[in-house]
Amino acid sequence: MRGAVLHAPRDVRFEERAAPTIVQPTDVVIKLAATCICGSDLWPYRGISPTAEPTPMGHEYCGIVEEVGRAVTSVKPGQFVIGSFFASDNTCPHCRAGYQTMCQHRELVVGAQAPRLRVPLADGTLVATPDVPPDDLIPSLLSLSDVMGTGWFAADAADVKPGKTVAVVGDGAVGLLAILSARQMGAERIIAMSRHEARQRLARAFGATDIVTERGDDGVARIKDLTKGVGADSVLECVGTQESMMQAIQSTRPGGSIGYVGVPHGVQLDGQGLFFRHVRLHGGPAPVRRYLPHLIDLTWNRKIDPGQVFDLTLPLADVAEAYRAMDTRRAIKTLLRP
Amino acid sequence: MRGAVLHAPRDVRFEERAAPTIVQPTDVVIKLAATCICGSDLWPYRGISPTAEPTPMGHEYCGIVEEVGRAVTSVKPGQFVIGSFFASDNTCPHCRAGYQTMCQHRELVVGAQAPRLRVPLADGTLVATPDVPPDDLIPSLLSLSDVMGTGWFAADAADVKPGKTVAVVGDGAVGLLAILSARQMGAERIIAMSRHEARQRLARAFGATDIVTERGDDGVARIKDLTKGVGADSVLECVGTQESMMQAIQSTRPGGSIGYVGVPHGVQLDGQGLFFRHVRLHGGPAPVRRYLPHLIDLTWNRKIDPGQVFDLTLPLADVAEAYRAMDTRRAIKTLLRP
Repeated sequence: MRGAVLHAPRDVRFEERAAPTIVQPTDVVIKLAATCICGSDLWPYRGISPTAEPTPMGHEYCGIVEEVGRAVTSVKPGQFVIGSFFASDNTCPHCRAGYQTMCQHRELVVGAQAPRLRVPLADGTLVATPDVPPDDLIPSLLSLSDVMGTGWFAADAADVKPGKTVAVVGDGAVGLLAILSARQMGAERIIAMSRHEARQRLARAFGATDIVTERGDDGVARIKDLTKGVGADSVLECVGTQESMMQAIQSTRPGGSIGYVGVPHGVQLDGQGLFFRHVRLHGGPAPVRRYLPHLIDLTWNRKIDPGQVFDLTLPLADVAEAYRAMDTRRAIKTLLRP
Repeated sequence: MRGAVLHAPRDVRFEERAAPTIVQPTDVVIKLAATCICGSDLWPYRGISPTAEPTPMGHEYCGIVEEVGRAVTSVKPGQFVIGSFFASDNTCPHCRAGYQTMCQHRELVVGAQAPRLRVPLADGTLVATPDVPPDDLIPSLLSLSDVMGTGWFAADAADVKPGKTVAVVGDGAVGLLAILSARQMGAERIIAMSRHEARQRLARAFGATDIVTERGDDGVARIKDLTKGVGADSVLECVGTQESMMQAIQSTRPGGSIGYVGVPHGVQLDGQGLFFRHVRLHGGPAPVRRYLPHLIDLTWNRKIDPGQVFDLTLPLADVAEAYRAMDTRRAIKTLLRP
């Protein structure tokens, strides 16, 4: 089969790779209905994270189970399934506490930008939909594999509650879905920080009540203005830079919470500065598995439509072009059809 | 009157100062029943924080109201009162959210190591006891002014709940009272990190179930051993150094919480490191005012005895000796009687 392989910065090739097979008895092989490109794929694509050798890309997936290992009991061939980018046993103490991305036996899922994918620890990792979905639900179901679950975790980690004021730093796909999540959790006011018109529109469609176009100190000042000098109850940090993290910390009211899901790159926090801001901080790789049953339910019943973040759909064979569109921010998020 | 004044590192003098008077109509003047020395007083005493000019010392206090400003309505002369080291109006948005140490009108209380003290914003700051207390309750009531409330906040910020496993980093007065707080909140297992026999005894008296004498990586390894490799649900950081903070972060289970109340000195946190530990972080100057009514109730009804942390009592005139005893760790905490 042919799949996406990163050879060097900005050199993604759609090329022949070994087709996945059952390696462990707990594996399954699925035939992908769709896959996509993650903001985190851009770190190695841009050369910010090094790529030592040709690397199969992609970790977002949904599709039909084709083959199951002999120890697999919870899914069977023909079912439509979704899983997280981290495979997890869902039985260890970290999984039982809801932190499946810290599973004591976790394995990173790799090579999902391909027609077929091996998923380890299938019983713990995969959740089946009630039936094989209609085609128009595929983008939203795919988003649950990472980006929607990550936005949801940002809101959950920042303790979003009904009636609260929320600010979202970052207007990428995760930030936009963090807005949708905050709305679902009942936030009354949702301030989106974005300076891109198309993203502002989607932010409003997902539930943003206010748009702040300023960044840095000016952005913080605007949030303070909008909250009578108090700050937001919950701030969702969906970027991962020093500037975005400081913007989040300074926009939060004392005793308020920050959920941070942008993988921090070069972020240093001064302990005393943090202490005197009195904020709560929680983040990490989103435990998407925890949210899958609930998010599948919301999507299946068409209460949420997170698939709207895919504003470009390409055949998998055009994966190199898909990366370029994301890299230049021409696309918010690109869906790939095998 | 005579009170404690810091002139230079390790130069505390008991010397003549102007007696406090009502300056603002919201002030009261109280006659102190007792005062004491805080771990944070040792930072300027040791010269780690600079002292630019002779500085009246002390911020922990309880005593009898002598005089009230004309705008004061909630306390009256003759009442026994306790307040926090930060005066607060208790009506602004930060106060109403329970973060009185971030009050929009907060004022630091200074000069409490003296017979009399001016307390600003008295209506918001002071809480009266049901009656004038018997003498043996004075140490415990005094502790509520800072150290006990700070230990309580550490446990509260770390989300201590019935049945949970808690680790406490630091065996100073705050760490010891954080143990007592965790016990009150129903923690099942409380691991105290201490290598001092007298402090270990008090830790056990306050509710510690395990003692870990190792520090740094060895300390973390012991916590992991004691929790089947999982880590503690809640870790209470009561020191404020890089080593103690890292020990706390590494001892916490994914999804667990750290309450940090030791004022960080030179602490830098790597954003990505924190992200991949998946811990919750909350701390700051303890909003003691929030807890005063509950802690007065527990103390008045002799359900807790936090005054046990005072293992040395001296006349106020011997304040210089009191500092020396704390500086050399001969005393856990020194109570001063005017």
